[in-house]
Amino acid sequence: MSSQKVNVGLLGLGTVGGGVAQLLLQEKQRLSDYLGAELVLAKAVDLRPELAAEAGLAPDLFSSDASEILADPEIDIVVEMIGGLDPARGFILEAISQGKQVATANKALLASHGAEVFEAARRQKVGVAFEASVGGGIPLVRSLRDSLAANQINSCLGILNGTCNFILSRMTAQGEPFAQVLAQAQAKGYAEADPYMDVEGYDTAHKLAIVAALVTGSQPKLEDIPTEGISQITPLDIQLAGEFGFRVKLLAILNNAGNGAVEARVHPALVAEDHLLASVQGPFNALHIDGDWVGQVLLHGRGAGREPTASAMVGDVLDLARDVITGCPGRVPPLGTARQGGGVLELAPLANAMCRYYFRFTAQDRPGVLARISRVLGDNDISIQAVIQKGRRDIGPVPIVMLTHRAQEAAVKRALNEIDSLEMIAEPTMLIRVA
Amino acid sequence: MSSQKVNVGLLGLGTVGGGVAQLLLQEKQRLSDYLGAELVLAKAVDLRPELAAEAGLAPDLFSSDASEILADPEIDIVVEMIGGLDPARGFILEAISQGKQVATANKALLASHGAEVFEAARRQKVGVAFEASVGGGIPLVRSLRDSLAANQINSCLGILNGTCNFILSRMTAQGEPFAQVLAQAQAKGYAEADPYMDVEGYDTAHKLAIVAALVTGSQPKLEDIPTEGISQITPLDIQLAGEFGFRVKLLAILNNAGNGAVEARVHPALVAEDHLLASVQGPFNALHIDGDWVGQVLLHGRGAGREPTASAMVGDVLDLARDVITGCPGRVPPLGTARQGGGVLELAPLANAMCRYYFRFTAQDRPGVLARISRVLGDNDISIQAVIQKGRRDIGPVPIVMLTHRAQEAAVKRALNEIDSLEMIAEPTMLIRVA
Repeated sequence: MSSQKVNVGLLGLGTVGGGVAQLLLQEKQRLSDYLGAELVLAKAVDLRPELAAEAGLAPDLFSSDASEILADPEIDIVVEMIGGLDPARGFILEAISQGKQVATANKALLASHGAEVFEAARRQKVGVAFEASVGGGIPLVRSLRDSLAANQINSCLGILNGTCNFILSRMTAQGEPFAQVLAQAQAKGYAEADPYMDVEGYDTAHKLAIVAALVTGSQPKLEDIPTEGISQITPLDIQLAGEFGFRVKLLAILNNAGNGAVEARVHPALVAEDHLLASVQGPFNALHIDGDWVGQVLLHGRGAGREPTASAMVGDVLDLARDVITGCPGRVPPLGTARQGGGVLELAPLANAMCRYYFRFTAQDRPGVLARISRVLGDNDISIQAVIQKGRRDIGPVPIVMLTHRAQEAAVKRALNEIDSLEMIAEPTMLIRVA
Repeated sequence: MSSQKVNVGLLGLGTVGGGVAQLLLQEKQRLSDYLGAELVLAKAVDLRPELAAEAGLAPDLFSSDASEILADPEIDIVVEMIGGLDPARGFILEAISQGKQVATANKALLASHGAEVFEAARRQKVGVAFEASVGGGIPLVRSLRDSLAANQINSCLGILNGTCNFILSRMTAQGEPFAQVLAQAQAKGYAEADPYMDVEGYDTAHKLAIVAALVTGSQPKLEDIPTEGISQITPLDIQLAGEFGFRVKLLAILNNAGNGAVEARVHPALVAEDHLLASVQGPFNALHIDGDWVGQVLLHGRGAGREPTASAMVGDVLDLARDVITGCPGRVPPLGTARQGGGVLELAPLANAMCRYYFRFTAQDRPGVLARISRVLGDNDISIQAVIQKGRRDIGPVPIVMLTHRAQEAAVKRALNEIDSLEMIAEPTMLIRVA
């Protein structure tokens, strides 16, 4: 082995940070053999000293002071596993300004301040790697950044939140309502005590912002990404979608038509049963990529958790360590393209989006209802592909379910406003877009 | 844009080589913007001058003399798209000795002479990239080499030959026999006029040899990889496997137990219907990877063809071009690990393999047959999990189909030899391993 050493400093010893420490310590020999240089966990920092022992760290490797990593000229690579905006942002910018390579899984930070971080890295000629920020252990960042770089990426469809996919998979298998399955997911550790960011789609939107930046070279504003979660999805909708041959998934959708109109949105969507994304079960994640030369590629695996995330983080550390060893730090711009820094990515408004729709109307069971609904849709250029009208009940309103041909979001919203104001409509209409 | 230039020389203008030329010419601006340097197709060589015009090459970019690339000090990267062992091997070694980076899709060459090529590249400190040699456009080489480098890879299961997968998918959907579907595949261009290398599993074995080298850092001998193709598979077996809940796929199997016992083999295998590999349809390829930290990852896409292969080749060219620009050629050893060159990978003998088995016996329809077969199996420590005995026919032998628990290949072969020599057995028994 070469006598060369690469020193890693680790910020944050939580669940995943502890996993990174464990992997670096336990597999030091294998990783160093692979690299051809000694890969050393030189220091780990956390405010909770009890985590040091849990991670198997010798006392002299632990500190509660981040400057022991950031100001140490011997540290080559900083692994940021604190999460959240502050102090992670300041630590990362300080590491970059000290000429250190950075690996981070911090999707919230990159989604909101990625342009700032990447520009700082470009100026300082250091590498910033973030494979673990989207899709956990799935090698999707490097695939988009490097392997598929010859392509214009036309679209990405992602299942990027394991909590939502677990809940929807259970709701589909068991027919149980959202709240009940969410409670089960919390009990199993598949959902946080505060599930808001996950189930309302914001975690997925963070990841989509990063995917959009990788595909286009520019960052969208997070607040420009239309985002809907899964808390409104009912077992009835899942069952009815199944009757049309679809499953319900929470999708991150990127459409890159190439004429400058980029669509990015997060919402529940109907996925055809024979599409590979329909088979993504439980806590798994997947990204379906369509490129102009490569065609369709699917990348599938565990999207979260201590071990898969540590796998991705240490993969990034090895890659950055090679740059250190061979003397070419910053060899790859963070987003792959040298064109990075093209300002904010403008997204096409949701009102312009075109897709197929699933509607579930809840109507009084009387003659003429279907005719009335159909007329409003027709007046708005929305044509119906299929209808399921459920047998009448003894009392009360009945569901009328429709699948449309491609229609425009603005027209759909207009039509549903009009329909929902009809006296014969008992509840607001459920809308789910078709992927 | 930087004024830097990276010059590419292309050897071979066949179907895929022509695609590489087209992509480099047509998307020159986009690729150069991405790279931050001018990416130039400087020269293309083929013995068939008519292909130059087809590929849209200006006359001065074409030559029939490979030395115009190999001896030109201005050429930074050589793309080898000739295929086969000679003269490709000599050209690649000459390019390396001239200090040029090399990208190749030549699986036959890498499977048999990879160690020689990689050792030459290591000595000369140049990069050799071969993403397109396995799985076409699927980013699986770089995923194994870089993204998943922190893992010990426990196993890989691959569907790596689109011709076989197309044929098996059709046989499954239509119930038609192998020979008939092969003829259809040839008519559609999914199978070669001479399909031997594909349908008998040798193309898959080449690719498995490369996967095994990426996972272990050492090359197996091609002739050590037990290889069976799909020409013996019948629609009856596909149907009966379906009754047990399985599909039939041609698999490349790598088991890396970590105690030094590495298994690599290619054969038809029963895949559980709910396994993601069972959903890989038609000409698609997929690699299912199990790593000790990342868990299970599936990479899926088009495994062959002009466009997907060109996508992978030009992705490699961009990666090598970065090494040229940043002055770190040979930054990554060809197999990722610095430990490369560990001699020949010894494979565990097939006789030691343990798996479940599907047997289809063809027996005279008389009392005691099942008892007799079961006794031989029991005597060889093979226990039966399920049996389907088809209703008796008016005349002639009947199929008896069994699924076993895990058993050892050597014991299975011994038992089947004994059973097939019984007078009540009408035909050699069909054996398919369970993945």
